[in-house]
Amino acid sequence: MKFSKFGNRFRRHTGARQLMDDLGAAMVSEEPVMMLGGGNPAHIPEVLQLLAERTREVAGKPHEFRRMITDYSSPAGDDRFRASLARLLQREYGWPLGPEHIALTGGSQSGFFQLFNLLAGVFDDGSFRRILLPLTPEYVGYTDLGLAEKLFVSNRPIIEYLDDRLFKYHIDFDCLNVEDDIAAICVSRPTNPTGNVLTDIEVRQLLDIARTRKVPLILDNAYGVPFPGIIFQSVEPVWDDNVILCMSLSKIGLPAVRTGIIVAHPDIIDAITSLNSVMSLSVSSVGPVLLNDLVETGQIIELGRDVIRPYYHARADQALAWIRSALDGCEYFIHRPEGAFFLWLWLPEMSITCDELYQRLKKRGVIVVPGHHFFPGLEEDWSHKHECIRISYSQQAETVCRGISVIGEEVRNACH
Amino acid sequence: MKFSKFGNRFRRHTGARQLMDDLGAAMVSEEPVMMLGGGNPAHIPEVLQLLAERTREVAGKPHEFRRMITDYSSPAGDDRFRASLARLLQREYGWPLGPEHIALTGGSQSGFFQLFNLLAGVFDDGSFRRILLPLTPEYVGYTDLGLAEKLFVSNRPIIEYLDDRLFKYHIDFDCLNVEDDIAAICVSRPTNPTGNVLTDIEVRQLLDIARTRKVPLILDNAYGVPFPGIIFQSVEPVWDDNVILCMSLSKIGLPAVRTGIIVAHPDIIDAITSLNSVMSLSVSSVGPVLLNDLVETGQIIELGRDVIRPYYHARADQALAWIRSALDGCEYFIHRPEGAFFLWLWLPEMSITCDELYQRLKKRGVIVVPGHHFFPGLEEDWSHKHECIRISYSQQAETVCRGISVIGEEVRNACH
Repeated sequence: MKFSKFGNRFRRHTGARQLMDDLGAAMVSEEPVMMLGGGNPAHIPEVLQLLAERTREVAGKPHEFRRMITDYSSPAGDDRFRASLARLLQREYGWPLGPEHIALTGGSQSGFFQLFNLLAGVFDDGSFRRILLPLTPEYVGYTDLGLAEKLFVSNRPIIEYLDDRLFKYHIDFDCLNVEDDIAAICVSRPTNPTGNVLTDIEVRQLLDIARTRKVPLILDNAYGVPFPGIIFQSVEPVWDDNVILCMSLSKIGLPAVRTGIIVAHPDIIDAITSLNSVMSLSVSSVGPVLLNDLVETGQIIELGRDVIRPYYHARADQALAWIRSALDGCEYFIHRPEGAFFLWLWLPEMSITCDELYQRLKKRGVIVVPGHHFFPGLEEDWSHKHECIRISYSQQAETVCRGISVIGEEVRNACH
Repeated sequence: MKFSKFGNRFRRHTGARQLMDDLGAAMVSEEPVMMLGGGNPAHIPEVLQLLAERTREVAGKPHEFRRMITDYSSPAGDDRFRASLARLLQREYGWPLGPEHIALTGGSQSGFFQLFNLLAGVFDDGSFRRILLPLTPEYVGYTDLGLAEKLFVSNRPIIEYLDDRLFKYHIDFDCLNVEDDIAAICVSRPTNPTGNVLTDIEVRQLLDIARTRKVPLILDNAYGVPFPGIIFQSVEPVWDDNVILCMSLSKIGLPAVRTGIIVAHPDIIDAITSLNSVMSLSVSSVGPVLLNDLVETGQIIELGRDVIRPYYHARADQALAWIRSALDGCEYFIHRPEGAFFLWLWLPEMSITCDELYQRLKKRGVIVVPGHHFFPGLEEDWSHKHECIRISYSQQAETVCRGISVIGEEVRNACH
């Protein structure tokens, strides 16, 4: 079977594919698998109960049910949900938004495919523009999204050493060159995979740079504010008409309904709407209908603040304690867990690469994600890329605990 | 805002966008709109009731509910559903299928985006391959799916005149040249927009040609067999490992959950799986979980045969009678309604184009789709392209009836 250039490019067995295959295999495996790999959210009982109640409610109201299941939404996504969300963001943060500032996509990942390829790549005049990732490690899912090769350019971080074997990445603004071929700047906040949360000062600095250079700033808030709000400290949510704010219903607990959200200037939204209609006709209304009341009333923000964030914060502390105990006596560092639900473990003295460690762990039934996938656009050889792994602590406590103890054993083997 | 070449290409206001915008606008309009445009399925009470019951059931079973909402599927789509469907197709038709022959996509349209661009377009060796549509009119949604321009090449049909102002399109096999640059052959069955159903003989002939020319045959069964089965006569469902069979849950009644299905050789499925994981991480599990039992038991085929098909067949007869009465005395022809839920009206003596008729009807609150959108890849000037409209008869009877009477008035105005 011969495939096109596009086909060959996207068929490569990418980091994202490996991650999703591991996740899928774990779901159907006969053997118990300790899945500390994927980005699946936890099964938080209060959240699940709320969602199940909402689902029953909708199933009992014919008009709502038809809206959720039987009628195509308009190509920008369910109009009522977009209006509710615009009102919520206006009420909470004073952002001057209407539904024309909001488009839904078939998950956040589809939204990034659309955004990156809309803003960057080959232009009609033959020029080529790229996306700047000012901080790596950065999300693995971006890596292969470009229709063109080399869509990303990125920077090493500054590493700040903290107490207790913790560290924190910062943007190296001194080395941040926004070349003329940069089409947009993009950061995730919290950062997937590290759990880093860019400081308000860093974000404001990025806003300034983006505005000065007349390029949009893409803020990937899949885990962040305003919801699901998995950030363990107080941060300022930002939006202005030069910001493209990306959100998702996945990390609240609905990854299988595939709803991504883009909040941006109406020109961007109009373009995304066209892409939606050509590439998918419309997007799912399941998430928008299930969550409309929560968004309309603002309850969704309380849910993040009162249930989801405290849940993951406690899980982070727990996982941190387990990993300290499992690695006692080894040379290791952990990125300070500031949000999302990952621990980013840095093992500078291992005799093997993180990919080899991933393979060894997989053989023992523990799935993590090797760190080298998380440096999209960073061409330079940097040993740090091969010294880290991402560990999710969102799954059942017992699984995470056992997984971490196996990680401890394998790291120990690889350090001596 | 400057957009890339890809962006500019996909931002064009396409037929699909117009159609989906009309549909979305109709949903939120204050004025009553007679929506005879989009491909929204009917609200069939038995189907809605069944789906609502299933939804309540799933909401009451924590394990099922988590599967539907809270857990990412593997990138090929929910594994259990794919296995159930493979068993069903094997049982019913003897096709030698396993789950490795099936991938789900975020709706049929996304599946076609992936398939067309995987198989055709620019190749690594610099060559360019195209998709052959052996029969036009053909589905508007294909038109703009190519990452490259001019992805489609297509043929005029043979027109067979039948009694009672009916006609039927046939593939003109004498003029069907499968040039060396053809990557795949694609037909919808029933044809969207005409309600034509290719005969078993035509399909077998296409199978032979495709196999001889060593290119796959893509069969778009969105409205067809095995489900939803909206075909008003008995036809033979076909699959072999040179066929790429595309199906959907939309026309059963679940367009808002966005589930497309591709049944093909495992090499194709593996490629689609990679595309899913890179472009969307995974696909929604809502449709697969809601319908799994129906697929597992085969009830989904009975639902098509006993409920959905008879429903639309009756609606077709009804709409045909209304249109005959509305156009009495005009020069008109109607494609024999053999499946799907559209009437394809041919008005050879109008003094205006179908696009102008569409505009006039829209002003009067009646939305149809002008026929010229349905000739993807047919470059030649052919007056027939501008003489047809597609009328959906899936919406409420009263709406369809009133809409058709307005169409009658406007056609009359345009014929004298």
